[in-house]
Amino acid sequence: MNDDPIRIIITGGTFDKKYDEIKGVMTFRDSNLPEIIKKARIFTPVEFELIDLIDSLEMTDEHRALIREACERSPEKRIVITHGTDRMAETARFLGPLGINKTIIITGAMIPYQVYGSDAPFNFGGAFMAARLMQAGVYIAMNGRVFPWQDVRKDYEKGIFRPIDE
Amino acid sequence: MNDDPIRIIITGGTFDKKYDEIKGVMTFRDSNLPEIIKKARIFTPVEFELIDLIDSLEMTDEHRALIREACERSPEKRIVITHGTDRMAETARFLGPLGINKTIIITGAMIPYQVYGSDAPFNFGGAFMAARLMQAGVYIAMNGRVFPWQDVRKDYEKGIFRPIDE
Amino acid sequence: MNDDPIRIIITGGTFDKKYDEIKGVMTFRDSNLPEIIKKARIFTPVEFELIDLIDSLEMTDEHRALIREACERSPEKRIVITHGTDRMAETARFLGPLGINKTIIITGAMIPYQVYGSDAPFNFGGAFMAARLMQAGVYIAMNGRVFPWQDVRKDYEKGIFRPIDE
Amino acid sequence: MNDDPIRIIITGGTFDKKYDEIKGVMTFRDSNLPEIIKKARIFTPVEFELIDLIDSLEMTDEHRALIREACERSPEKRIVITHGTDRMAETARFLGPLGINKTIIITGAMIPYQVYGSDAPFNFGGAFMAARLMQAGVYIAMNGRVFPWQDVRKDYEKGIFRPIDE
Repeated sequence: MNDDPIRIIITGGTFDKKYDEIKGVMTFRDSNLPEIIKKARIFTPVEFELIDLIDSLEMTDEHRALIREACERSPEKRIVITHGTDRMAETARFLGPLGINKTIIITGAMIPYQVYGSDAPFNFGGAFMAARLMQAGVYIAMNGRVFPWQDVRKDYEKGIFRPIDE
Repeated sequence: MNDDPIRIIITGGTFDKKYDEIKGVMTFRDSNLPEIIKKARIFTPVEFELIDLIDSLEMTDEHRALIREACERSPEKRIVITHGTDRMAETARFLGPLGINKTIIITGAMIPYQVYGSDAPFNFGGAFMAARLMQAGVYIAMNGRVFPWQDVRKDYEKGIFRPIDE
Repeated sequence: MNDDPIRIIITGGTFDKKYDEIKGVMTFRDSNLPEIIKKARIFTPVEFELIDLIDSLEMTDEHRALIREACERSPEKRIVITHGTDRMAETARFLGPLGINKTIIITGAMIPYQVYGSDAPFNFGGAFMAARLMQAGVYIAMNGRVFPWQDVRKDYEKGIFRPIDE
Repeated sequence: MNDDPIRIIITGGTFDKKYDEIKGVMTFRDSNLPEIIKKARIFTPVEFELIDLIDSLEMTDEHRALIREACERSPEKRIVITHGTDRMAETARFLGPLGINKTIIITGAMIPYQVYGSDAPFNFGGAFMAARLMQAGVYIAMNGRVFPWQDVRKDYEKGIFRPIDE
């Protein structure tokens, strides 16, 4: 388990937003994941797969179908998906009932990786570890916790994830 | 398990080294952990305990006795210890045989938190998650893996942790 | 000249934008200037004055009247104004003809201070030095150059400042 | 003057120190200057010249002879030298009496560029602007001031530069 290969499916979100200095807004160019993996000195096998780099507010069921396919055909049994936080819980509820026999951990960030003090590396570290340790199923790993897909929501006011009734 | 309180025992190491601009070297002043916890938006209970801020090359068995005591009297059953990487495996082998009935995860960093591209938040994110998910025992969480105390060494050439025979 | 007190008039712009993790956009909270001054170890007298923290696209002649007043009543003869880049040249052309007998240097940034690799400290360092060295007049200091107010424009395509005919 | 080409002579110092994660110390690999120039969007001509990447405590008169030569044969009349702070004043006093008919500005940093909150970009921005604006001579630009070579010292306690009698 400890050196199982892990697939990382990249879908964008704040995690991978970069500052576009010409337009003056946060936008997407390419993913920070390869750099994070390198800096974290992960030497066990990691496969990257880029679905799209979009804000999760723009995520449609067509995008989710692509994520589903990517999960289903992944030869690796352990998967981390980076995703925007605004629709992360929806994607978890889309994937969860499919019964894919793999460990699928969805994570993201509230602050872009390129901004000082970003939560991206912390969340990704937690998601990567959860992908190692959890049994098959669909989960969200955020804020130092891991939630099953059936019982997770974003608390938009506090900017955190928590169980539905908490 | 998902909202168990977690104790963080801080012992220094590269993780918490800061640049001393007067002396021109990396040294210790205070821990970056409270900031990391805040940035990661961890809202479940976290207790900090500062044993010492030292380079792990200077760590003696007296320091390790303090760490042991801190683990034993911790009311929290889940513990993360931040530690220098050079003697991390020794501390794991010191604590492991004691049979403390808690989940104890030791982690650290190769690049100080204050240096751009530090592995500290990634490793800490992984250790924090391992503290949630692992059963009682002493482990090292580094480089996206978690190692039992009996089978871990630092590969000084590559700057990573791995099993003894790998 | 070398230890003349310098007044810093803060008006916002990309220089002082911060990432709002709840809204997911760059916005304003408070200025980074005090931290920059502290990190730069400036021990000569510096006075801060906060006019407003706005995007320069929203800057009206009413805001410019406030900037004018701030310049006129400044007891310091050397002034740096931080400003959004999109309307910086307009503000220079507003202030220039007034004939205020002080050295007024306007500067800003294309990348927010909090984003890794920001040009804010470089530009501010150049503007601060220009405020020390230039004679009375209104100038823009950006990209390692200093421009008189009559002959400066933003090249929106390249994201730099240059003379009108260059 | 405003678009004169500028030569940058790189000699190391804290400015260009990088964290060596294997050895756990700050050391030298390559210069950050090209990245700083790029991020600052400097489009006027800049020439780099790497003399050496050393701590200024190790700087000998042989190194200084190389710096002298580099200044003398520089086709550009405006030069910025990056240098360790500990022996910066000595190098200024070495170069000053030579009467080289160029504007030579020496600068450096107390905190490495790669450490969050570094003073390197601010100091370099000030030095670059001083190289544009000062007449021929040898100067140190640090902490938002510019000092003639005859009257500058490092205040080791405060970590700043100041006139000899201040």
